[in-house]
Amino acid sequence: MKKKLAMIAFGGNALLRSGQKGTYAEQLANVQDTCEQLWPLMEKGYDIIIGHGNGPQVGNGLLRHEAGQKEYGLLAMPMDFCGSETQGSIGYMIETGMERVMRRHGIDRKVVTLITRVEVGADDPKFQNPTKPVGPYYTREQAEKLHEETGAVYREDPKGNGWRKVVASPVPLKINNIEVVEKLARDGVIVVTVGGGGIPVTDSPEGHKGVEAVIDKDLASALCASQIGADEFYILTDVPKVYINFRKPDQKALDTITVAEAKEYLAQGQFTEGSMAPKVRAGISFVENGGSECVITEAGQLGNPACGTRIVK
Amino acid sequence: MKKKLAMIAFGGNALLRSGQKGTYAEQLANVQDTCEQLWPLMEKGYDIIIGHGNGPQVGNGLLRHEAGQKEYGLLAMPMDFCGSETQGSIGYMIETGMERVMRRHGIDRKVVTLITRVEVGADDPKFQNPTKPVGPYYTREQAEKLHEETGAVYREDPKGNGWRKVVASPVPLKINNIEVVEKLARDGVIVVTVGGGGIPVTDSPEGHKGVEAVIDKDLASALCASQIGADEFYILTDVPKVYINFRKPDQKALDTITVAEAKEYLAQGQFTEGSMAPKVRAGISFVENGGSECVITEAGQLGNPACGTRIVK
Repeated sequence: MKKKLAMIAFGGNALLRSGQKGTYAEQLANVQDTCEQLWPLMEKGYDIIIGHGNGPQVGNGLLRHEAGQKEYGLLAMPMDFCGSETQGSIGYMIETGMERVMRRHGIDRKVVTLITRVEVGADDPKFQNPTKPVGPYYTREQAEKLHEETGAVYREDPKGNGWRKVVASPVPLKINNIEVVEKLARDGVIVVTVGGGGIPVTDSPEGHKGVEAVIDKDLASALCASQIGADEFYILTDVPKVYINFRKPDQKALDTITVAEAKEYLAQGQFTEGSMAPKVRAGISFVENGGSECVITEAGQLGNPACGTRIVK
Repeated sequence: MKKKLAMIAFGGNALLRSGQKGTYAEQLANVQDTCEQLWPLMEKGYDIIIGHGNGPQVGNGLLRHEAGQKEYGLLAMPMDFCGSETQGSIGYMIETGMERVMRRHGIDRKVVTLITRVEVGADDPKFQNPTKPVGPYYTREQAEKLHEETGAVYREDPKGNGWRKVVASPVPLKINNIEVVEKLARDGVIVVTVGGGGIPVTDSPEGHKGVEAVIDKDLASALCASQIGADEFYILTDVPKVYINFRKPDQKALDTITVAEAKEYLAQGQFTEGSMAPKVRAGISFVENGGSECVITEAGQLGNPACGTRIVK
């Protein structure tokens, strides 16, 4: 019998948590904690694919590259390069955490991290209007100079901290090596992929080329899940369910919503952009592309059959 | 018919070359150039596994982490973490380069980079006498303080630049996910693995734990090659052959040498430590563990059947 396959998108707090310093030991403990929460799925013998974000990590990477240039004259590498670094380091930490959890439970499965490029359209309209601020703050003069040198777009920070590069968040179209991800996962290997939404690349006759952009990790995970035909797609976050009228007197947790309802709530602005809205959109994308349901929930709820908010057809 | 499998260890100049600034474009051009040199093997339909070094890259990574801490208060992560970052970024560049070469030749094979942990012995005697300097220079006072805080060992730079952390270069014992590497390679996927010699980890009842150390990439590649039963093992360097009496009037290029001869030359100090000596040792290790021959050569010579220096039984 073919085993069930679950795609799980790790949330930001899989690694970094507020109130912590973000030491290596803390990050490893956090990731191990999140991996432990996957135990109910592992116990049932699910095939498992893990996606994850890299927002703070790639942000730190860009700052480190900037600081290395200032301090040591090391050339600062662009965002796609920094993204590939985070796929390496976060994958390494997830492998370490998963292995520890499996040892504790006395099971032995392989965990493999694949560096994953994700193709976006060079003509994606998002490139015309980049909005995602990344990297260090600059003075207006520095930003203008950098714009002239590199063509990158800089915008003034609304809080007055200076000017920052803004990049686009294009739609993921194609996951490189998706057949390898599927084959490994179906063989029982736990696969870590589409880290940080994948390294964004555009295609050309010569081959793929990295671009400075950020792919939403939940959307990339949804694409991966639907292309592989995942039976279940979990988006982990730090609240047990999705709410409407969030933090208002009539706040209401959602158990199951249809794609149509989800779209209606999105149109009403019920979900915060940059937080719950992209998760709901990723869930919609999965179901619209043939998935049965997407569950948005806290990692700690995974063993509970009534966990989270389910988006269904 | 089972295809031949070649393990190829990329040399340092696969990415960075002297006289260049080390821009991203230069690095990508260099890696593409090296990948192009593999064409004779690809044309013959070989299964291919690629290992690579990360010396300058992990060095830069450590400096960037240091600078990021100074400039932005970002915690500097340890060496295993920085190593995992370089596996991501170098693998990404090799994937990009290989794809471009294959497009040009009109073939289509998958290229996959695996984040690879490599187990070393916690009791490896090398840990008692760390010798490999890594990361930034410190004053004596700073080094003493860091030693007290972390237990890491610092030594004074012989050229008087200050004090630097020194780490061990333990022997690689076991490559994590080697079965996955073999399976993918035998399926025709070009696999990038053991980057930088692998992320060094030691085992414990709880699981593997990263250690600050450097595994020789040629030795890790040799281990990978012999465990998989590679038919051919190439160590790429920037000279066409191995020489004895190097840069002396009686310099002599070696065509084929036995393991016994190689050991004798090593004992005579014919090969530079940190350069040719570890390559010869890696070749010996491969042949002693059942490999038929190891070829140490320039990438550009790969199509030439008489290329390089062969180490045989």
